[in-house]
Amino acid sequence: MNRRILGLDPGTGIFGFGAIEVSGKNTFSMLTGGVVSSPANTPLPDRLLDIYDSLTEIVKEVSPTEISIEKLFFAQNVTTAIAVSHARGVAMLVARQHNLPISEYTPLQIKQTLTGYGRADKKQMQEMVRRSLNLPSPPKPDDAADALAAAITHALMTRI
Amino acid sequence: MNRRILGLDPGTGIFGFGAIEVSGKNTFSMLTGGVVSSPANTPLPDRLLDIYDSLTEIVKEVSPTEISIEKLFFAQNVTTAIAVSHARGVAMLVARQHNLPISEYTPLQIKQTLTGYGRADKKQMQEMVRRSLNLPSPPKPDDAADALAAAITHALMTRI
Repeated sequence: MNRRILGLDPGTGIFGFGAIEVSGKNTFSMLTGGVVSSPANTPLPDRLLDIYDSLTEIVKEVSPTEISIEKLFFAQNVTTAIAVSHARGVAMLVARQHNLPISEYTPLQIKQTLTGYGRADKKQMQEMVRRSLNLPSPPKPDDAADALAAAITHALMTRI
Repeated sequence: MNRRILGLDPGTGIFGFGAIEVSGKNTFSMLTGGVVSSPANTPLPDRLLDIYDSLTEIVKEVSPTEISIEKLFFAQNVTTAIAVSHARGVAMLVARQHNLPISEYTPLQIKQTLTGYGRADKKQMQEMVRRSLNLPSPPKPDDAADALAAAITHALMTRI
């Protein structure tokens, strides 16, 4: 069976996801991509439930063999990091409930793996995601592209 | 029906819980108290699954009417705060899955509400928990007592 990697870009307002299938040594195709989003004034517990239900549904649909999730970038705003960690905990729970191995990559690792350059900008990253998946245009919205970038990074980092 | 408050003191290594029943205006009795704990080298996803399953079980047994959860103390170690937030997210998810309203209190609010003094030490706090619940000795372990303190705080802060 081919590997199917579900990439996750955790957030509380917008939670990106994107799944790829790996065929042969180096061919990636996009299975799905999108975001779980909630209006700005949604209480955190409601967001977490929405993330839990949506990710559970996506895992059932995609049947991934593994999960790749963005690691938090500590230098950022602590309040944001704390909020995002709540969502990240729920994502890890879903992965564990389905016995899926979880790999974590920092934004720096993802940029370096996809573009060879740790300071690549958003446009460069989206272009590399587009090319890696043979798409006519970069996947939208941005957080879905970021999740796909995490999935591609894991595929590249674990090539046999 | 009497109010039943489940207090939670989130952590990844040790997650404290404690439930009280409120009868009349000011009488609290302890329903349960304990910790969900995992060995130091347990992977985070395994801990989160354990916390999820245990809290789900406790909610089913205790049938709480509401949840009181300790707020994070931001001044602490950021790495710890990030890890604890993962566990906190899972706890909020369980509460939301059972439609339980969640109230949050900082350690300072809990100390002030129980002892009238924001810098109360652990011993003073445990003694106030013991007295509030009419127990022969303070509940053990410490994290269970902290969770009960969160539950008592919520009961006192929302007295009618």
